[in-house]
Amino acid sequence: MKVRCVSLVAAGLLTIAGSAIGQPAPAPMPAMAPAAKPAMNTPVDRAKILSAPGVFVAFSTYKIRPDYFKVALAERKGAADEVMAVLEKHKEKVIVDAYLTRGYEAKSDYFLRVHAYDAVAAQAFLVDFRATRFGMYSDVTESLVGITKALNYISKDKSPDLNKGLSGATYAGDAPRFAFMIPVKKNADWWNLTDEQRLKEMETHTLPTLPFLVNVKRKLYHSTGLDDTDFITYFETNDLGAFNNLMLSLAKVPENKYHVRWGNPTVLGTIQPIENLVKTLSMGN
Amino acid sequence: MKVRCVSLVAAGLLTIAGSAIGQPAPAPMPAMAPAAKPAMNTPVDRAKILSAPGVFVAFSTYKIRPDYFKVALAERKGAADEVMAVLEKHKEKVIVDAYLTRGYEAKSDYFLRVHAYDAVAAQAFLVDFRATRFGMYSDVTESLVGITKALNYISKDKSPDLNKGLSGATYAGDAPRFAFMIPVKKNADWWNLTDEQRLKEMETHTLPTLPFLVNVKRKLYHSTGLDDTDFITYFETNDLGAFNNLMLSLAKVPENKYHVRWGNPTVLGTIQPIENLVKTLSMGN
Amino acid sequence: MKVRCVSLVAAGLLTIAGSAIGQPAPAPMPAMAPAAKPAMNTPVDRAKILSAPGVFVAFSTYKIRPDYFKVALAERKGAADEVMAVLEKHKEKVIVDAYLTRGYEAKSDYFLRVHAYDAVAAQAFLVDFRATRFGMYSDVTESLVGITKALNYISKDKSPDLNKGLSGATYAGDAPRFAFMIPVKKNADWWNLTDEQRLKEMETHTLPTLPFLVNVKRKLYHSTGLDDTDFITYFETNDLGAFNNLMLSLAKVPENKYHVRWGNPTVLGTIQPIENLVKTLSMGN
Amino acid sequence: MKVRCVSLVAAGLLTIAGSAIGQPAPAPMPAMAPAAKPAMNTPVDRAKILSAPGVFVAFSTYKIRPDYFKVALAERKGAADEVMAVLEKHKEKVIVDAYLTRGYEAKSDYFLRVHAYDAVAAQAFLVDFRATRFGMYSDVTESLVGITKALNYISKDKSPDLNKGLSGATYAGDAPRFAFMIPVKKNADWWNLTDEQRLKEMETHTLPTLPFLVNVKRKLYHSTGLDDTDFITYFETNDLGAFNNLMLSLAKVPENKYHVRWGNPTVLGTIQPIENLVKTLSMGN
Amino acid sequence: MKVRCVSLVAAGLLTIAGSAIGQPAPAPMPAMAPAAKPAMNTPVDRAKILSAPGVFVAFSTYKIRPDYFKVALAERKGAADEVMAVLEKHKEKVIVDAYLTRGYEAKSDYFLRVHAYDAVAAQAFLVDFRATRFGMYSDVTESLVGITKALNYISKDKSPDLNKGLSGATYAGDAPRFAFMIPVKKNADWWNLTDEQRLKEMETHTLPTLPFLVNVKRKLYHSTGLDDTDFITYFETNDLGAFNNLMLSLAKVPENKYHVRWGNPTVLGTIQPIENLVKTLSMGN
Repeated sequence: MKVRCVSLVAAGLLTIAGSAIGQPAPAPMPAMAPAAKPAMNTPVDRAKILSAPGVFVAFSTYKIRPDYFKVALAERKGAADEVMAVLEKHKEKVIVDAYLTRGYEAKSDYFLRVHAYDAVAAQAFLVDFRATRFGMYSDVTESLVGITKALNYISKDKSPDLNKGLSGATYAGDAPRFAFMIPVKKNADWWNLTDEQRLKEMETHTLPTLPFLVNVKRKLYHSTGLDDTDFITYFETNDLGAFNNLMLSLAKVPENKYHVRWGNPTVLGTIQPIENLVKTLSMGN
Repeated sequence: MKVRCVSLVAAGLLTIAGSAIGQPAPAPMPAMAPAAKPAMNTPVDRAKILSAPGVFVAFSTYKIRPDYFKVALAERKGAADEVMAVLEKHKEKVIVDAYLTRGYEAKSDYFLRVHAYDAVAAQAFLVDFRATRFGMYSDVTESLVGITKALNYISKDKSPDLNKGLSGATYAGDAPRFAFMIPVKKNADWWNLTDEQRLKEMETHTLPTLPFLVNVKRKLYHSTGLDDTDFITYFETNDLGAFNNLMLSLAKVPENKYHVRWGNPTVLGTIQPIENLVKTLSMGN
Repeated sequence: MKVRCVSLVAAGLLTIAGSAIGQPAPAPMPAMAPAAKPAMNTPVDRAKILSAPGVFVAFSTYKIRPDYFKVALAERKGAADEVMAVLEKHKEKVIVDAYLTRGYEAKSDYFLRVHAYDAVAAQAFLVDFRATRFGMYSDVTESLVGITKALNYISKDKSPDLNKGLSGATYAGDAPRFAFMIPVKKNADWWNLTDEQRLKEMETHTLPTLPFLVNVKRKLYHSTGLDDTDFITYFETNDLGAFNNLMLSLAKVPENKYHVRWGNPTVLGTIQPIENLVKTLSMGN
Repeated sequence: MKVRCVSLVAAGLLTIAGSAIGQPAPAPMPAMAPAAKPAMNTPVDRAKILSAPGVFVAFSTYKIRPDYFKVALAERKGAADEVMAVLEKHKEKVIVDAYLTRGYEAKSDYFLRVHAYDAVAAQAFLVDFRATRFGMYSDVTESLVGITKALNYISKDKSPDLNKGLSGATYAGDAPRFAFMIPVKKNADWWNLTDEQRLKEMETHTLPTLPFLVNVKRKLYHSTGLDDTDFITYFETNDLGAFNNLMLSLAKVPENKYHVRWGNPTVLGTIQPIENLVKTLSMGN
Repeated sequence: MKVRCVSLVAAGLLTIAGSAIGQPAPAPMPAMAPAAKPAMNTPVDRAKILSAPGVFVAFSTYKIRPDYFKVALAERKGAADEVMAVLEKHKEKVIVDAYLTRGYEAKSDYFLRVHAYDAVAAQAFLVDFRATRFGMYSDVTESLVGITKALNYISKDKSPDLNKGLSGATYAGDAPRFAFMIPVKKNADWWNLTDEQRLKEMETHTLPTLPFLVNVKRKLYHSTGLDDTDFITYFETNDLGAFNNLMLSLAKVPENKYHVRWGNPTVLGTIQPIENLVKTLSMGN
């Protein structure tokens, strides 16, 4: 199970040399809905959706209500099948990743990451999920939405050397067991810098991160105006010490002075097949 | 159903060339209550109320309580009819728009936007709505009230060129499926600027927004003193990427430095006929 | 009913020319408890208590718990009588005003304003109120206490012209249907100004408000040290547009820069006879 | 009952001329636990513990859960006896004061102040209290702990004149019926001042308070590092107007600029024998 | 029982002269998971795991839900055995310390500190703990995770004299009965100082703490990026007055000006064998 889980997720993350972050931006950004919609009856192509710009994402954290444990155990045992049926129903429109946060977080027991070409499809899945037995007993405690976009700053054109450094860094650690979801918001002074000034700060930000990319994968979502954050940063790693050092290196650059939100929450979970996760959280007498 | 929904709402939004935003202000602002009250037995004229100044609005977000799903399904199936009857009862005084937020928001499952010439009529509707089965099982999680006013800054007189730019911009996207409700509050330094200084900042604010108006509709409500916000900004779009770019352009002007609240919450919902919305949130066993 | 309501409340508000705000301060401020206690068996003199200094006030907002609607309707129909009996019991010590906030506010369904010469009498009433059926199903969501004091700044002595302006302004609108409760707290820089500096700021604050007094009544309570606010400001109006303009004029003076709290919450309610309010919130099946 | 209550509490408060605040500090501060432990089988000496340094205090505010009123009235009538038995059990180790906040506060119905020479004894009492029927139906909503210390600044040595002024001020009001619990926290700039600078600020702070000591008693607890506050200030008065004026005088000195917390919460209660308090909050059908 | 408790915990804390804090850093920091994993079938070596770098820690605070007291007392009496069985199951992977906070804290009744070489093992234990009867009735109210690292600043190389001072300080108080968990977060200005500047500030920070180490033990966890704090500081003492003085000395150095979080929460508990703690919180009728 663990192996299946890791392989499912690994496809969803770019090694830094991957196509989306490194690729040139498509000229005008396409509208959310119609772009690159897959044909009917086919599951979403996971590798493709995870590397495309213009993709919608919804992160949501959930806490199981205590009265779930008053539901008969037999009934709780059917919870995973019901959730899997909903996944099957929506597989042509969304991909779903699941993470167990119980033990690490106070405000959640698990979180979901849902990607879709169309934001309405993501909502449709999540509405159906909440109508399952497991979903009914889950309170949503945090929700963040965003979209993927082509690389803004450290592109081939604007910052060729660093872009090459990023492209050359390859993840070489064990299959990641941990994921982080960390929102980031910057203040008005940041957004009022010129493009050149922001580029310079992002170069200073990027340089010290290169040594850590061998141990940490990352993906970026844009949320300005879509939610109360500018970015949702997402990481996978198997080495929490390396991740701590990466984050310290990001704390030590001037760009950090423009943050008004970095975390709040910082959500740590273990990467899990959703079936496992539902079973784990449905046990107990 | 979807088509009916969209057409209902489209009337409620001004393309930027529309009458209310562009029209000259009526000399003294009328008192809220008696102005332009419609004749008895006639539904409120939707196009008219949505373009008039001096109109009261109440936005409220709701979360379904978990025990709603312990109500017998047969009873929940009657919920939509009961809500529609309340709408019918109040149709001479209020118009009501509904939005599904489940899947996008943690603190709500849906929100309502209620317009009325008289704030007491809006309250009367909302009190009756809360007394329905569906309303009883809905917790109000956020509420913001405001009023419409004639255009303050970018008027024909004060800023003729930009006013012309706004008037020339016409929404040309697909029927919007998404709506945003975003409160905005400014600090004391902003309000202590002279009228001329604020006009200048608003011109700088308006210029970069023009290219996006083809994809985003917007409406502004004034709340200073009526609630803990200065403005409620409301948007409809079918293109989340364009909306993100619009909001980025607004982040990059100096006016942003005066914000003490921009969002908190940013509420995203899909535009829904209220009947559909009630049915969607009443399903599940 | 509505008429009775309005007349009850109108007495509780000073037109600006009224006695309390304009009258000279009694030499030393009297202790809260014994001052001007009414004779036994007589209801509190409403006009007198609402214009006297040294009076205690408790504002409290309430939200009906959802399980109230599981109480039999017959029993809920008796709720208003029970509340009226408690009012009768305490009528020699307190006056009570009630406001319906449902539909306007997320954190409350109604609020009460209780005046008493003795703070213990106000508590005694509120404890008895909470022991009624209606009170038991009401959660207190906000509570603010204060006292009335003689005019501090714009007095006959200190600022004769403005004092005359205030005295000359008379409320001339329709009977107010709306009330606002808005806490105000100022920072240490404000309190460290000299008396003369604060007087100057308050004159600048007062001047632009004069034109609005024809449409807005107001009353001020002092809370420094008694609660986490310096002032509780209370307003009645029938014209929400005029009120918005009044508040904008107060935002635009330098005194606003000293605010650390202005609202949070801003509570808007419709003025209601308490009997009506209890009945309104007790309906539903 | 009221008389007994007042006399009980009056012993617990220093008139400013009292022994603890005015007395010279014992050379090294003793460890919390063993110091001055009373002999077995004897109630704690109230006057002594309330004037000694090195005493532990726990303030905790409580809110009765609504389902308490679904407990049979007969059973609720036994609640006070059960609480009194717990007090009896712990009388050799702790003294307990009780305050009714219902009607004044939203987040609590009452609060307790527990003094003990040993912090473990305070916890033992509070654990037993929570295991009573009344305690089980009480949610703790705020908790603050601290210790007493000898006078820091306005001592005989450091500030002889003001120390004499404090010693000369004697409470001369009616028996206090009201108590306030107000946490105070200062910023890093304050703590980075030299001892001399802080002494100077405290002298400026103390001088204007002298005239109010005739009407307000006060006691100070130290909490830096023990809790999220630096001090817990506690007051008793029968004159809320005088207390408001005292707090205004403290707002007007430069020391106020160093506050990051002053209140939040400010808790006002009436001083009550605990037996009365439990009975009052156990009534209702 | 108390004796067993103290001895269990004492092993988990470094006297300042102990090996971990004083020892030279291992050259590159090892990955979290595989380092120093103990052989199968053997309990974790407590002394070793508490002095090693690269160890994962999860602190979590819990509040018992009120309905626990509606569970039959007989059933609650079995709660401790069930928890002990879970501890036994995980003893090869984790060590667990327990602290009773009831009476001192509003947001919790107890907290756990879990150490593991592998963060997944810590989660596995905490998931099983939550599935016990006692865990099911416990709401997690705060959760903080971190890792141990070798000494950063006051090392033999960088600050030899202070390092010697730390090494020479030995805890000499009674067995500690109290523990504190206090998160610390620093601002971007701090992290943008040079290494030399931060070292200098930490030297100024360390010097005044030396006299208190005879009465206070401490341990440091690093959390930047792993959670919404930079550090989790943990203390044990039997002398709350000395602890207060230690924290005051830390407030008075310039490093304090860089704090954006110091506490929030400050959690105080008594050190307890977990079996005792479960029994204490399971009593009541």
